[in-house]
Amino acid sequence: MGILVVGSVAFDSVETPFGKVEKVLGGSATYFSTSASFFTDVSLVAVVGEDFPQEHTDFLISRTIDLRGLARTSGKTFSWAGRYGYDLNDAQTLETKLNVFESFRPSIPPEYADTEYLFLANIDPDLQMEVLRQVKKPRIVASDTMNFWISSKADALRKVIGMVDILIINDAEARQLSQEPNLVKSARTILSLGVKTLIIKRGEYGVLMFTDSTVFAAPAYPLESVYDPTGAGDTFAGGFMGYLANTGNLTEGGIRQAIIFGSVMASFTVENFSLDRLKVLTYPEIEERYRSFKSMTHFEGLPGEA
Amino acid sequence: MGILVVGSVAFDSVETPFGKVEKVLGGSATYFSTSASFFTDVSLVAVVGEDFPQEHTDFLISRTIDLRGLARTSGKTFSWAGRYGYDLNDAQTLETKLNVFESFRPSIPPEYADTEYLFLANIDPDLQMEVLRQVKKPRIVASDTMNFWISSKADALRKVIGMVDILIINDAEARQLSQEPNLVKSARTILSLGVKTLIIKRGEYGVLMFTDSTVFAAPAYPLESVYDPTGAGDTFAGGFMGYLANTGNLTEGGIRQAIIFGSVMASFTVENFSLDRLKVLTYPEIEERYRSFKSMTHFEGLPGEA
Repeated sequence: MGILVVGSVAFDSVETPFGKVEKVLGGSATYFSTSASFFTDVSLVAVVGEDFPQEHTDFLISRTIDLRGLARTSGKTFSWAGRYGYDLNDAQTLETKLNVFESFRPSIPPEYADTEYLFLANIDPDLQMEVLRQVKKPRIVASDTMNFWISSKADALRKVIGMVDILIINDAEARQLSQEPNLVKSARTILSLGVKTLIIKRGEYGVLMFTDSTVFAAPAYPLESVYDPTGAGDTFAGGFMGYLANTGNLTEGGIRQAIIFGSVMASFTVENFSLDRLKVLTYPEIEERYRSFKSMTHFEGLPGEA
Repeated sequence: MGILVVGSVAFDSVETPFGKVEKVLGGSATYFSTSASFFTDVSLVAVVGEDFPQEHTDFLISRTIDLRGLARTSGKTFSWAGRYGYDLNDAQTLETKLNVFESFRPSIPPEYADTEYLFLANIDPDLQMEVLRQVKKPRIVASDTMNFWISSKADALRKVIGMVDILIINDAEARQLSQEPNLVKSARTILSLGVKTLIIKRGEYGVLMFTDSTVFAAPAYPLESVYDPTGAGDTFAGGFMGYLANTGNLTEGGIRQAIIFGSVMASFTVENFSLDRLKVLTYPEIEERYRSFKSMTHFEGLPGEA
């Protein structure tokens, strides 16, 4: 079962304490679909400008990503520039040029309308809603958002959250959305909007998942060199949804495994700039790191208990 | 097998967004020994002033803590005042009055000299070294420290670290001690000082343990109400050492279980001010929360693998 992702394809310029890159391939849909492509078929809906080079298209095709939904319009591709300090958890945005993304109206090709797994990356919640109207009845819809939409389009966003199955946001966004500093209370407030599963990303501290009756805590992989955290969240979501779509296992146990696969993928992405690490990643490396997560988190139960 | 702890007994005045307490029972040795007392016998070496009330002594005795090493000298008991904002990870110190603690020279009663488990709480590394000289050959020595000693007594501290088995510090202290922002590299640098096991406390984000060949990541328990984080680190150390001393199991697996027991104890301490939560805590509650940690972190291995 394949996945449909609607989001951005972009040029990123990024500076970290470890280096600097200019106008490299980026964007939420790019990271998501590349990551998910290790597990399942992916179709991408996004827009680029006339300046989007063939080499990037070729790369996405090499990952067998279906690009029939990638519109190319006159103008320039969305671009973002940012900088990270030694605390790699927070990006400082230097420049955002929406360009062709400004008038992006996602049009879902008819052959995608009965997609079973849908990811709404961080775009205007009104557009997320338009996408929801264009698909029939997906098995699982997950979505992301950001501080800008939480403050500027709170009502539209809450409506979307009430219609999706899984919300994947970071801890600052969860606190802002719920107006509650305590993360457990925050999770409860967000679940009350109607979403069944809330995944809170905490950067180098890993991930918390909340449902009405369970909590799951997964660490991030402790890395010796984090070069560039850009795209880690979307890469996480791609590995997560990719594994879910691959197995179709939507039990609590299946979702927990998917979270670990997402964490594995994110841990690779940050090892280099742009998608450079994912470009050379192999599936055996993914499995090996999954095993590392398993041994890194294992401990025995109480004496005399399983 | 009992534990000997050398540290502080203090009066704390604490303000958090959830309330305020004045001159309540605190101190590293107090939190440590109360926590450890749920698992094993504890002997405490510290100093208090003439103003230390009988009710606090009575409480420690009620936890069957051996107070023969608790000196009472003329003057006032060490006192600390601090404030926390909504980000409960960082305390702002308002006032520290060392009082009788200023001239504290730990004298280990002869009957404690062959103690098998020793915890050197956060005191002057020169005093930690004096304690090490007074004990024979403990099975396990663990120690803590703080930013003040890292900057003012780096050489003495490094010597102590080279002589202990387990160092338990927080992430900021690890980065300061190693002068390395990346936590994995930081851990490697610290292990090269000669300590075999490094436990890095990350507050609400849990704990990382590093040895030469393994990494273990444990989350903190996601709590709906954290009233006061004061003493969480020493409570963690107390539960950790207490469980180790109780079982004598110093394998990687035993140490991992001890880390979870430490995390369990810390999660209770922060639920109320001072030692108020530990005062009413029962062992079945500890076991129940251990089971919660287990179910909160469990996920299956790769399909087809254990």
